[in-house]
Order: sequence, then C-alpha cells, then structure tokens
Amino acid sequence: MTELDVAQLQRRLTDFAEARAWEPYHTPKNLSAALSVEASELLEIFQWLTPEQSAAVMDDAGTAFRVTDEVADVLAYLLQFCAVLGIDPLAALAAKIDRNEARFPVPEGAEVTERHSSE
Amino acid sequence: MTELDVAQLQRRLTDFAEARAWEPYHTPKNLSAALSVEASELLEIFQWLTPEQSAAVMDDAGTAFRVTDEVADVLAYLLQFCAVLGIDPLAALAAKIDRNEARFPVPEGAEVTERHSSE
Amino acid sequence: MTELDVAQLQRRLTDFAEARAWEPYHTPKNLSAALSVEASELLEIFQWLTPEQSAAVMDDAGTAFRVTDEVADVLAYLLQFCAVLGIDPLAALAAKIDRNEARFPVPEGAEVTERHSSE
Amino acid sequence: MTELDVAQLQRRLTDFAEARAWEPYHTPKNLSAALSVEASELLEIFQWLTPEQSAAVMDDAGTAFRVTDEVADVLAYLLQFCAVLGIDPLAALAAKIDRNEARFPVPEGAEVTERHSSE
Repeated sequence: MTELDVAQLQRRLTDFAEARAWEPYHTPKNLSAALSVEASELLEIFQWLTPEQSAAVMDDAGTAFRVTDEVADVLAYLLQFCAVLGIDPLAALAAKIDRNEARFPVPEGAEVTERHSSE
Repeated sequence: MTELDVAQLQRRLTDFAEARAWEPYHTPKNLSAALSVEASELLEIFQWLTPEQSAAVMDDAGTAFRVTDEVADVLAYLLQFCAVLGIDPLAALAAKIDRNEARFPVPEGAEVTERHSSE
Repeated sequence: MTELDVAQLQRRLTDFAEARAWEPYHTPKNLSAALSVEASELLEIFQWLTPEQSAAVMDDAGTAFRVTDEVADVLAYLLQFCAVLGIDPLAALAAKIDRNEARFPVPEGAEVTERHSSE
Repeated sequence: MTELDVAQLQRRLTDFAEARAWEPYHTPKNLSAALSVEASELLEIFQWLTPEQSAAVMDDAGTAFRVTDEVADVLAYLLQFCAVLGIDPLAALAAKIDRNEARFPVPEGAEVTERHSSE
C-alpha cells in the first residue's frame, strides 16, 4: 500500500537518479522535454487507430503492457520534474479542478456540450 | 488529505466530464493527444531558457503559477486516460521502477554515468 | 516564385533571427523543442475532433487560418533547425523515400494494408 | 534538381500511401498526431544534451544520420498533412514571415533581445 504512495514513488525515483549521479541531466528543462517525449510515445500507440480501436487497446496483452509502460514513463518524469521544482502535483491538480468548477458551471441540459480546446 | 488522494482526484475529474457529457470526446486516443499537447505547453515555458534559468523558474510568481498550472493539466489528462482504460498509474510506475532497478544496477563509482535516452 | 523557394525562406528566417540577435537561443536543442511545441499546437486544433470533422477543418475560414498558421510555424522551426546544422531537408526526405520504397514493397492486392506505427 | 522539388516530394509521398491504400489512415487528425510524434523523436535525441553538445550532433556519423532521418520524417508528415488539406506550406511560411516582419520591427541596438515564447 505504502508502495503506491506518490511521495514514496517520488523518493524511489530520486534515489534511482542519485545512485547513478544523474542530477546534472535532470534540469527542469530536460525533464519537461523528456516528459513531452514520453507523452508522444503514448500517443504513437494511438495515432493510426479509429476511436473504436483506441477504446479496445487493453484487450490485447502486448498493447496493454505497452500502454501501461508508457503511462509509467510519463508519470515518472512528471514526478521527477515536480520533485526538482518543489511542486506538489496532487495539490496543483486539486486547485485546478476547484478553479475549473468555478469557471465552467455545469450546464442545465443533459446534451453533449461542445468540448473546449483546453479547460 | 483525502482531497489529495489520487483516486479521489480521478473521481472529481470523471464527475466533471460526466456533468458536461464530455464522454464522447474522451476516447483514449483523444486523451493521449490532449496529454501530449499539455506536456508540450509545459515544455514551451522552458524552450528558450538556459539550464540555469530553467532551474530558477519558481522564483518568479507568474512563471511559478504557469508551471504549476501546466503540471495540473498534464496530471489531469493522465488520470483521465487511466480512468477510461482502467489503468492504475501508481501501480504501473511502481512496477516500472522495479523493472528498472533490475535492468540498471547501481554503478560502482560515484561519477556521473551517461544518461540513457530512455530507461 | 523565387519567394517560395526553400533556400530563400531559410535565408529570410536566418536574417530575421540575426537582426534580433537571437542566435544564442537558436541551439539545435532549443529549435527541436520549439518544433515539437509548434507541432503540438497544430495537433491541439484536432484533438477533440472526429475523423470526419478533422477532414473538414478548411471549411471554416477562422480554423483554416489557424491551421495554415501552425503549418508555417512548424516549417519555420524545421528550416531553422536544418540551417543551423547544415541539413538539406529536401535531400533528407528524398533519401528517406528511396529507402522506404526499398523497405516496403507495394503489396499485390488493392486492399488496405495495416498501417505501420512508423515507416 | 527536380527530385528535390517540394511538389514532387509531395507527389511521391502521396503515391507511396496510395499504393498501400493508406488513405483511410491519413486523416488530417492522424497526420497531425504523427507529425507531433516525429517531432518528439527528433527532440528525444537532444533531451539530455547540453547546449554545447547539441551544437555538435553532426560530428558523430551515427547521430548525424539519426537527426537527418527524423528531419525527413517530420517533413514527410508535414507535406502529407498539407497535401490532404490543400495547404501550400511554402506560401504559408512566406505569408507568416511577412506578418512577423511587420509585427516585430528590428530593434535599434545590436544586443540580444529577449526571445519571445512564440513569434
């Protein structure tokens, strides 16, 4: 259980990098580049799929492993980026959801509302 | 404390999307594209900075807010992607760190080791 | 006609950067980051669209302008990146197509063949 | 010479895709995703490099080949994206440079001016 704690994962990642003396590489700039590269590797799995095929990626064991592995890479660099800059990612997200709930009130009807480019 | 729990943040994000009937937009393909777009918006803040300038981004309140806000966006899409596909991101990362610790043993010396393109 | 020549566009971009003394920013690393950020801005326009909607983006004048503008940004950074490193992008692409034609022979039948993740 | 013409490269790419019946995959949305994935593959080469190392990537034959190959991939998807939507990429860039020259007048002095996040 504790193994799945964000702070502990962050500590394991930091220890991993420290043991290999990788701190000189782990500038915020480099980590943000690595994060975006890993996010693209996740996207690459989906780039030629139809919406329906994309919803079924977990049905194939090999693809499921690849997707899960890329999720891990994205999270790893996000947590390392946050560790280096002293950002609490969960608090950042909680605050953002608070702001979005204030900015985008729930519409009256139940129809699909047009999706904003970024909320 | 509970507010900062990953599962609860995931639930808040899912409720937020459901209340706006955004599920049709939230295919894994679209969410992976949105995740990579947000990661690039984070990178954009750093693209012209020197390594030294990038290490000091939190010193300016406006930039610190922008960085924290983009971190929240990246995490938001990562958690929504995982919710849609039934992936546990913390378990995925713990398993990946386990694999990496086995694959990349700690080197003997204390010098900087060459950073791998992706570990 | 000469205005649309790749070499001349590259010269205009180089002159533009030189006149503003931007060379210190234009390292290959920074230009590759900027290129990927601009490619993501293009993707952002499409991230929530269905395949059918994505095929019709040029029907709306405002969206058509935005798409064309992002294409220009991507090409601008690609040409500047190539100028800094002395790469001829058209020769690089011609050589790549030659290699791909050798690696991926045309299939006999006329059916849709499975798309490779990257060719 | 004609081999290096943009329009001819575009035709070769279109013929290549047609011969493999890949048109169903080549929606503008998918091509913009593929373009951004390729741009990230180029960035990946640079992500852990110092500015100085990044300026010297062409000194190593293997890295030079990899960089040139990724440039070709980025340009290939950009040209295919433009072919599908009927955009002239060189005209788009020429128009953008015209606009930027009007928007960002050359500064008087010769010092380095602060680089804008995006011009």
